[in-house]
Amino acid sequence: MALHRISAASLRSANSARLLQRSAPSTRRAASGLAEFNWEDPLNLESQLTDEEIAIRDVAHSYCQENLMPRVLKGWRTEEFDHDILPEMGKLGLLGPTIKGYGCAGVSNVAYGLIAREIERVDSGYRSTASVQSSLVMHPINEFGTEAQKEKYLPRLAQGEIIGAFGLTEPNHGSDPGGMETTAEEVDGGFVLNGSKTWITNAPVADIFVVWARCKWDNRVRGFILEKGLKGLSAPPIENKVALRVSKTGSIFMDSVHVSHDALLPKSKGLGSAFSCLNSARYGISWGVMGALEDCLARTREYALERKQFKRPLASFQLIQKKLVDAQTEVALGLHASLQVGRLKDQGKVAPEMISMVKRNNCGKALQHARVILDILGGNASSDEYHVGRHVANLQVTNTYEGLSLLLDPSSIGGDTDHLLDPPTGTNDIHALILGKALTGIPAFAN
Amino acid sequence: MALHRISAASLRSANSARLLQRSAPSTRRAASGLAEFNWEDPLNLESQLTDEEIAIRDVAHSYCQENLMPRVLKGWRTEEFDHDILPEMGKLGLLGPTIKGYGCAGVSNVAYGLIAREIERVDSGYRSTASVQSSLVMHPINEFGTEAQKEKYLPRLAQGEIIGAFGLTEPNHGSDPGGMETTAEEVDGGFVLNGSKTWITNAPVADIFVVWARCKWDNRVRGFILEKGLKGLSAPPIENKVALRVSKTGSIFMDSVHVSHDALLPKSKGLGSAFSCLNSARYGISWGVMGALEDCLARTREYALERKQFKRPLASFQLIQKKLVDAQTEVALGLHASLQVGRLKDQGKVAPEMISMVKRNNCGKALQHARVILDILGGNASSDEYHVGRHVANLQVTNTYEGLSLLLDPSSIGGDTDHLLDPPTGTNDIHALILGKALTGIPAFAN
Amino acid sequence: MALHRISAASLRSANSARLLQRSAPSTRRAASGLAEFNWEDPLNLESQLTDEEIAIRDVAHSYCQENLMPRVLKGWRTEEFDHDILPEMGKLGLLGPTIKGYGCAGVSNVAYGLIAREIERVDSGYRSTASVQSSLVMHPINEFGTEAQKEKYLPRLAQGEIIGAFGLTEPNHGSDPGGMETTAEEVDGGFVLNGSKTWITNAPVADIFVVWARCKWDNRVRGFILEKGLKGLSAPPIENKVALRVSKTGSIFMDSVHVSHDALLPKSKGLGSAFSCLNSARYGISWGVMGALEDCLARTREYALERKQFKRPLASFQLIQKKLVDAQTEVALGLHASLQVGRLKDQGKVAPEMISMVKRNNCGKALQHARVILDILGGNASSDEYHVGRHVANLQVTNTYEGLSLLLDPSSIGGDTDHLLDPPTGTNDIHALILGKALTGIPAFAN
Amino acid sequence: MALHRISAASLRSANSARLLQRSAPSTRRAASGLAEFNWEDPLNLESQLTDEEIAIRDVAHSYCQENLMPRVLKGWRTEEFDHDILPEMGKLGLLGPTIKGYGCAGVSNVAYGLIAREIERVDSGYRSTASVQSSLVMHPINEFGTEAQKEKYLPRLAQGEIIGAFGLTEPNHGSDPGGMETTAEEVDGGFVLNGSKTWITNAPVADIFVVWARCKWDNRVRGFILEKGLKGLSAPPIENKVALRVSKTGSIFMDSVHVSHDALLPKSKGLGSAFSCLNSARYGISWGVMGALEDCLARTREYALERKQFKRPLASFQLIQKKLVDAQTEVALGLHASLQVGRLKDQGKVAPEMISMVKRNNCGKALQHARVILDILGGNASSDEYHVGRHVANLQVTNTYEGLSLLLDPSSIGGDTDHLLDPPTGTNDIHALILGKALTGIPAFAN
Repeated sequence: MALHRISAASLRSANSARLLQRSAPSTRRAASGLAEFNWEDPLNLESQLTDEEIAIRDVAHSYCQENLMPRVLKGWRTEEFDHDILPEMGKLGLLGPTIKGYGCAGVSNVAYGLIAREIERVDSGYRSTASVQSSLVMHPINEFGTEAQKEKYLPRLAQGEIIGAFGLTEPNHGSDPGGMETTAEEVDGGFVLNGSKTWITNAPVADIFVVWARCKWDNRVRGFILEKGLKGLSAPPIENKVALRVSKTGSIFMDSVHVSHDALLPKSKGLGSAFSCLNSARYGISWGVMGALEDCLARTREYALERKQFKRPLASFQLIQKKLVDAQTEVALGLHASLQVGRLKDQGKVAPEMISMVKRNNCGKALQHARVILDILGGNASSDEYHVGRHVANLQVTNTYEGLSLLLDPSSIGGDTDHLLDPPTGTNDIHALILGKALTGIPAFAN
Repeated sequence: MALHRISAASLRSANSARLLQRSAPSTRRAASGLAEFNWEDPLNLESQLTDEEIAIRDVAHSYCQENLMPRVLKGWRTEEFDHDILPEMGKLGLLGPTIKGYGCAGVSNVAYGLIAREIERVDSGYRSTASVQSSLVMHPINEFGTEAQKEKYLPRLAQGEIIGAFGLTEPNHGSDPGGMETTAEEVDGGFVLNGSKTWITNAPVADIFVVWARCKWDNRVRGFILEKGLKGLSAPPIENKVALRVSKTGSIFMDSVHVSHDALLPKSKGLGSAFSCLNSARYGISWGVMGALEDCLARTREYALERKQFKRPLASFQLIQKKLVDAQTEVALGLHASLQVGRLKDQGKVAPEMISMVKRNNCGKALQHARVILDILGGNASSDEYHVGRHVANLQVTNTYEGLSLLLDPSSIGGDTDHLLDPPTGTNDIHALILGKALTGIPAFAN
Repeated sequence: MALHRISAASLRSANSARLLQRSAPSTRRAASGLAEFNWEDPLNLESQLTDEEIAIRDVAHSYCQENLMPRVLKGWRTEEFDHDILPEMGKLGLLGPTIKGYGCAGVSNVAYGLIAREIERVDSGYRSTASVQSSLVMHPINEFGTEAQKEKYLPRLAQGEIIGAFGLTEPNHGSDPGGMETTAEEVDGGFVLNGSKTWITNAPVADIFVVWARCKWDNRVRGFILEKGLKGLSAPPIENKVALRVSKTGSIFMDSVHVSHDALLPKSKGLGSAFSCLNSARYGISWGVMGALEDCLARTREYALERKQFKRPLASFQLIQKKLVDAQTEVALGLHASLQVGRLKDQGKVAPEMISMVKRNNCGKALQHARVILDILGGNASSDEYHVGRHVANLQVTNTYEGLSLLLDPSSIGGDTDHLLDPPTGTNDIHALILGKALTGIPAFAN
Repeated sequence: MALHRISAASLRSANSARLLQRSAPSTRRAASGLAEFNWEDPLNLESQLTDEEIAIRDVAHSYCQENLMPRVLKGWRTEEFDHDILPEMGKLGLLGPTIKGYGCAGVSNVAYGLIAREIERVDSGYRSTASVQSSLVMHPINEFGTEAQKEKYLPRLAQGEIIGAFGLTEPNHGSDPGGMETTAEEVDGGFVLNGSKTWITNAPVADIFVVWARCKWDNRVRGFILEKGLKGLSAPPIENKVALRVSKTGSIFMDSVHVSHDALLPKSKGLGSAFSCLNSARYGISWGVMGALEDCLARTREYALERKQFKRPLASFQLIQKKLVDAQTEVALGLHASLQVGRLKDQGKVAPEMISMVKRNNCGKALQHARVILDILGGNASSDEYHVGRHVANLQVTNTYEGLSLLLDPSSIGGDTDHLLDPPTGTNDIHALILGKALTGIPAFAN
């Protein structure tokens, strides 16, 4: 593991006391062979983590709380992208952390999940920016790129010196049989790309774009690395978003963009390669949204303890306690499920449907319970200074994105991959149908 | 009824064709004695309305769609208050519409509900602004004011020439037995008021404030009319709201504000008078939120019909149809329940608990179903140009406000009225407990 | 109106005091122009009923509480049919009550709904027995029969002297294009019927069967009246049901059953005729299930008031009050929606989709909330002496039956009527799709 | 591990092929480093189990499916207790399996959970019978008994030769400060017990009773072993239950029951000792109910695959797939959470609140989702031959029982233990408040 400049070990000693809040077990419980209960970790996830995972989690936690949290309100209000953030994360080893070499930390998939959780504890937008960098840009270069491409891009991406975007989703819904409309044509000295992509995180601020195009010579889809500044390439922002306002979203327009042969990711083979990126991203999201819900829980719990109504703390009301406990329970269940998937991923035993299950469950539950506990804030729910409303707006979107292009094996959604380029609608439902197909053997996507 | 300048009759002929979309019944159905089904009015609410109610509804509908709708996005993005809107509503007779005389329309409570529904079909913030003007400012002046006060203020409020605000909620939560902290003291030539109010709709733009204070001479709460510009009176805005951004919200600070004797609303007697204003407002909200949900339904239905996925319109998917139909059903049920309450209100047969029931149910259902159908938009849910996300953010707040100070008869919440000044937390729950007390005879507010 | 032997007027004077529990409004409320709140009728449904409707409702209420309630536990435990019940209902005018003449009461559709509600307040099984008699047997004879058939059967059915059953659903799911498998062939002196029907309420105890068969001579579906005892006709019971145990359910087997020409209902024309019967039944169910939920509410409220936990009545706990109030609210909304549909039905303005809406909503809400409040009983939920568990088991079934064959106009489910003979699966969903088609124009039944 | 007579190893080879249904991974997935997805074990719980745990799970599975399943319908219909079942379980080592010695298997708490899951996959009543034997009778004798008591009772209980019951809950709700009404008084030669207990599983068929009584000499609660046949001791059944019909429930009446000194469990000290039994039982229930839901899922999935509607399998409908997938997801999450709690229990790191969390979550989710998928059966839901309705009725009760007496440390519910003897009402809520107290520090039990 390579944590740069900041020493995980030193941080941990400071953090863990604060984070874990474990007082020594009461005499009474200890005598009965019973443990204390930690409301922040109700089923003792900590006991399942390695020391390294705990250390990197603590580094991420400190950074996010001390450095991201103070900036989030301004970013949210102005929709301005903060260019310092990816470099800061890079210095801590938080980008592309599962990659071995190229300046990356080389930690477990569980560690990657823990990082996503800490970032999203602050804001889903920051986590989206980092997810794209790690899972959708660094991952495909590492998996499908040449050694030269890896050496050229990965270290700088890992440091956050350059920002990446991932261009798969297209504005039209591909009703023609030919499917994806973005094309790559081979010409003298390289390729020419034409087409457009939309709802692309990081696009307006990206230095490089991993774009997916249908290759005219064999009709297969492959990935290409495009650098900002190419003639014919533009990436205008989508403004006035109601969510994920601290990250930038935009389109990618390619009007006869010429690139040399070394722009091609040579090992990318069909949509399956793109899907493997999304699988990685979705796995991270399953951890991230739990962090957002944990933050909502901590804030509304605090509010309920401080605020009095009818001369008693809100936290003393049964209706309030039930809301908080329901949220806490879903966090615990969701985290342990993601942990299991992460462990299986590290062992090469993961099935994409498992990721559909935890992504769908955790996003759905995070949204549902964040909404419920937001009510505890009453009128203050409409002030952005209480943060929970911001999380709720973000979680609405995380529940619906990343739904398209769901499986490595396109045949699993019925053999017809054209629709995979459709805009991601009702993603929670799409994951339900992915799982439904695995459960019944019958694809009901177009039912 | 006094509809000014715009002729309801003329508008109606144009509108009703568009609005009702009733084609002649099919030959087949007619032969069987069956009616056509109108998805926009599934249980035929229209058949229960008087011609006058239909006419004023159509005027309000046209105005809102043609004049408010084009301005809502700018208002939402900038949080700037549009000073033209109340005068426009005033000209159409939409302000204080149930009041007889003083330039008011004098229509039924059902007509008032229909107006609220049409305004909130555009935005809950516009409806909040109008609700405060009608139910919380004009209503108490009409009920508790002198003839001179009525003549001085009501015509100008009805025309939207001046804007009113209603100051009841206080920032501290009155844990001392003395309760409300804002006081009025009698001095030579009038009264001196001291105290502060918060979460006050319209406050930063108001010309007059109906403020409630505890009178030191007999410890009873009474209402006072304060005019903008008084020494010691200020009303700063609360900025960066995540909802109701087209209406203004702020505080009211009173630092030894001197007023003459004619500022007192002489017939106001205790908190019960303030509560009667809130009852009127809440009744209107029960209609308004149904309008917001209807707009969400119409927009997501349209989107689902146009958008294709897996080569079929989204609207052809079972999971999508179920979401839409659930919303449609709750709109129908909620509107018919509010209609019944409105009719009883006109007949003097309404109980405050009935208003709690429809306010709670309609706000809760509007929020719940607007959230569910928002998912249909997928990634586009995060763009404010699709409007549904804006409604969802607004409905979150309407579900939690107007919860405090719930009944005319303070004894019905246990005889102790001090807590009524608490900030409105978990209002949906508070209404549940109001109804719970009526159902069981046991107050569980402080349980 | 023809109420026999028992005088509605006399009963009413006794009942209404008990039923309505309206004390005079408190002085305080009256002075404020406010009404008292009646938890058993929260939105004052009573004010919308005619005197005649109130009278017949009171007769039905008294009969059901005094005569059915004491017998329900025995019937439930033994699955034995009580042959006295239909004659008793008949004497009170509760069977076929909307029919004019033939010894029927000739009251409004709202009165019919009120009767269903009172019977189902005791048990859904009794209501099923009565619904079949009124809507599925007397209705088609009245609508599609000859004068001779009406005179022969209606008076005896109205008196409960004979019991009817309705045979439409078939055990196989008609995957062949020919559809319904039961056939009628014209022979010398009449017709021969062959086929089988299943899940037929009343079949094992029926004296006459209104059976639907495909006529071989023109391939159209028509109704036939079969009398018990015909050679080749049998109707064995389905035993060990987990719900609706006080009513009998069985199959109908027809093995070359010969009937004379006067068995044919001559005005029955295709499945549409059968559907009109189901529409009538479903309308009644929408009222009935509200009665069942009202009984659950009254019983759990009583229990919660009497039972103490932590030294306080359960009814004083917030979590308990919320459950009760949610149920109460849905009862109020559901009843007012059914009232509106009933009034439109009386005026010939009803659309079948309206009935789908109230049937689906009321059954779904009754089941959902009965389940929630059942929890209040704790361990006693498993004892049948508390009655709520019995209602829950019944409501589970009412939520799923009567789903098939939904519209008078078969084209509205896509023009293909064969599937209408399928077993009624997931009826709540089927009604959602009926409404979905009306909302979007797209049939998604086979999606 | 001591599996008697039936060889786990031999069974496993036969079972695992059938149970796991793991075909070799597809070539395509294997090449991509991806695993196959097993719908019956979506997150690969199997990979977390030891060989011993898998073996005992397979033995339990075979026994339950081959020997219990064929008997369940008769038991349910007749409410007759099958005396052969506990001896059969005993022979396989399924009773008191975590106890070391005394003829018990001495396996892990996870193995205990797996056994409960397999039994409840058939019926919650069988599991209740076994849970009482293992957790509420054998556990306290092992924990609080003398060596002589252990040797006298444990081997015969382990073999199922004798049946035990656990008497804690009392019919009155102890509103007097003295609390538990059952008393033990020391007399010459032993003790005299007086009092009554109710809702006692196994009571009518029990050979021994572990009864809890307040000892008059020091006012502390202690456990006593009472043998059937003692003068003054009776245990009549509660009949006509609507759930758990294959297990017996009854009361225990003690009218001056004399026992010798060796009836006392000498190490039992106060209610805390009784609570430790309930904690063990509740942990097992958290596994058991997941088994019941798994059976509902498997049956409704099968039904949905076989049954056609609109000419397609029900399983091909989106609305059906979503219901199935939601249930499947909650099974996976619930099992992994219980696994974590079991592992912590084995390590002495469990907190009672963790057990509250998994008991509450798993019971609540099992009930909720079993109800939803029951709808898939349509009309067949009311036939007991489809089994799912039976599970739903059982799960209703498991969701509400075992709520009382929740913690080892009585102070955690506010220091007042009298109410712990109240009947178990709204247990799901009680666990919410247990967790709420741990989360907020505020007891809201009596709020």
